[in-house]
Amino acid sequence: MTALQQQAQRVKEASFTLALCTTEQKNNALLAIADALLAQSGAILQANARDIENAQQEGIAPAMVDRLRLTSERLGAIAQAVRDVARLPDPIGEVMEGFTRPNGLKIQKVRVPLGVVGMIFEARPNVTVDAAVLCLKTSNACLLRGGKEAFLSNKALAVAMQQALASQGLPRDCISLIEDTSRESANEMMHLNNYLDVLIPRGGAGLIDAVVKNATVPVIQTGVGNCHIFVDESADLQQAVNIVDNAKTSRPSVCNACETVLVHAKVANDFLPMMQKALQAHHVQIRGCERTRAILEQAVPATEQDFATEFNEYILAVKVVDSFEEAILHIRRYSTGHSEAILTENYAHAMAFCANIDAAAVYVNASTRFTDGGEFGFGAEIGISTQKLHARGPMGLKELTSSKYIIFGQGQIR
Amino acid sequence: MTALQQQAQRVKEASFTLALCTTEQKNNALLAIADALLAQSGAILQANARDIENAQQEGIAPAMVDRLRLTSERLGAIAQAVRDVARLPDPIGEVMEGFTRPNGLKIQKVRVPLGVVGMIFEARPNVTVDAAVLCLKTSNACLLRGGKEAFLSNKALAVAMQQALASQGLPRDCISLIEDTSRESANEMMHLNNYLDVLIPRGGAGLIDAVVKNATVPVIQTGVGNCHIFVDESADLQQAVNIVDNAKTSRPSVCNACETVLVHAKVANDFLPMMQKALQAHHVQIRGCERTRAILEQAVPATEQDFATEFNEYILAVKVVDSFEEAILHIRRYSTGHSEAILTENYAHAMAFCANIDAAAVYVNASTRFTDGGEFGFGAEIGISTQKLHARGPMGLKELTSSKYIIFGQGQIR
Repeated sequence: MTALQQQAQRVKEASFTLALCTTEQKNNALLAIADALLAQSGAILQANARDIENAQQEGIAPAMVDRLRLTSERLGAIAQAVRDVARLPDPIGEVMEGFTRPNGLKIQKVRVPLGVVGMIFEARPNVTVDAAVLCLKTSNACLLRGGKEAFLSNKALAVAMQQALASQGLPRDCISLIEDTSRESANEMMHLNNYLDVLIPRGGAGLIDAVVKNATVPVIQTGVGNCHIFVDESADLQQAVNIVDNAKTSRPSVCNACETVLVHAKVANDFLPMMQKALQAHHVQIRGCERTRAILEQAVPATEQDFATEFNEYILAVKVVDSFEEAILHIRRYSTGHSEAILTENYAHAMAFCANIDAAAVYVNASTRFTDGGEFGFGAEIGISTQKLHARGPMGLKELTSSKYIIFGQGQIR
Repeated sequence: MTALQQQAQRVKEASFTLALCTTEQKNNALLAIADALLAQSGAILQANARDIENAQQEGIAPAMVDRLRLTSERLGAIAQAVRDVARLPDPIGEVMEGFTRPNGLKIQKVRVPLGVVGMIFEARPNVTVDAAVLCLKTSNACLLRGGKEAFLSNKALAVAMQQALASQGLPRDCISLIEDTSRESANEMMHLNNYLDVLIPRGGAGLIDAVVKNATVPVIQTGVGNCHIFVDESADLQQAVNIVDNAKTSRPSVCNACETVLVHAKVANDFLPMMQKALQAHHVQIRGCERTRAILEQAVPATEQDFATEFNEYILAVKVVDSFEEAILHIRRYSTGHSEAILTENYAHAMAFCANIDAAAVYVNASTRFTDGGEFGFGAEIGISTQKLHARGPMGLKELTSSKYIIFGQGQIR
């Protein structure tokens, strides 16, 4: 066995113990983790300072260095988030269905942990704690592999969390950090089929793509959002301006931000100048089709590639369409299945949009920015699934669970 | 685009149309399929006769030839099964959850089709119809790749089903058979990520393993069952004999058959001779540990490998254990996570077994043979999932569905 297989084996052993813990034991461990993060904030911030120093020496972009940075304020917020998770209801043990068969067999479908969750993520140390505590809450042991830029921070965080686990009588290996941050360790992790029940990549499109392509362990795909808003002929145009502005500019770097606006030709002359005016406050660059540019002279020409791009920036692609049907076909072609919206006062179009668009979240007259575990009221979010198996859309605690059938008999044979 | 990509693209187009069909349209198409299978039974049986002839010429084993064979009786049963599926409730469109957020957004989680389901299976032509109609019932288009031995039969079945679809105004490409039965086509199918939403292999361990290892399309893993029965110290021994006999001999070739019996040392002297006597009627070969062989002189020595093997035959591995804990550890080591049973009158052991054993189905005092969609009352079965994501245990129609969030707003922004 390789060193990583041995580590994964220990995590799997720990998962058997964790599966038998009560809600109270898990919540106590979560509160102990919150305390430990604060108690050890000196060591954690010191480790983080060294990560920052290394990152700056290697000339990493300031925005990325900022993501990497922990402060005592940020650490306080992380600890508070852990306490919030402790207060959420425990999904484990729920009897999801139950029935008695004609032969007397009593069959129950019970919610159980997945077992061991693998997470691969990039350079945000808060994800280390976030992933670990959501797994712990759902009785999953976890094997974590963060980016090398955050390694010392992650290590300090893991040490604090493991000490908290031990203080509550839980195995330290319930939360296990991979110390080898090489590409090889990521690749080996993708093939730990005997130990991992699922692998969740959290990060950019490149990371997710690599995991989907290479992993033999089952994967939950999260993230990429090329989201559209279709402004229909009958839309309330002022409302549409507000929604587009919100969906594009309130946080352009996230996956539920809008990337393309489709406008019905009959309202394009009225709507597009209104929209441009609102977006100017954020200096949004508009990349328009020919008909858009005939209306908005400042718009730059949109290429085919622009319509396929998740900009994650203050850039918006705009296309004028002649019909509802054309809007549907455009979205089908370029959608990543994340969040799609229609703005309309036409009942038939609203219903047909919901039926025809195949995405995790389909909106009528609201901003795509609501696709989020917090906004949906889930209390916690592991990520937003854009696949159709297991979980689709914002994933809360339930999405980190599986089920098993428990069958009580009195000697039944078939 | 390759020929297969073009075919998959047509199936995807068809899936958009199918997603909008009503339950009535789908049920009418199913009844038309049942009629077409009977109306075209001449052509189907003729094609099958040629497959059988080819198989016999290639010296394929008689048991396999029998699986391949269609008769007008078997075809009648297949058509009847299609009518039965038409009568099942339609899971699509169910509002699984729904709530209104404080800001007035109305969020619904609605059950929707997966989209396009890929199936790879071996030489049983009935699976072609079975897979196609379960997909049709759940509004999924399907891309089917059967074994080359059944190709002419599958082709004739697909022609009949496609004509029935067309007669009801549905796209023929809702049910699409891959005509290239080479290994290359299977491999290409495993990477059709742009067209397939899921790939379900149905067949032997070799096929399933190849798909899990190679596919980049999400896979639902079905099947392999190394199932255990633990006869505890307090078991009702006569009941235990009946259950073991049923679980081993009622149909040894299936995945929910028992492969290993673990017996508590305190009852081994009484139980094992009783068990041996019952199993003799089916000439079951017992492969025992040393302590088993001290009691059952006819038992042959069990190797380590025997305990890891799904025999699918009249062979049973037997081990004497000293404790409940030893039984748990043995099962954890060798279980494939399919079906595991404890036979006991001890309440604490019954509950602890259910909590400690990580399998799709965990039984107390009943035969493992009940792990089956029909026995669970699901009306239809696509297979038995041994993975923990998406579906676990017998999969009915619901397991061929996904969900999407539909959000009705009145201009909400975040």
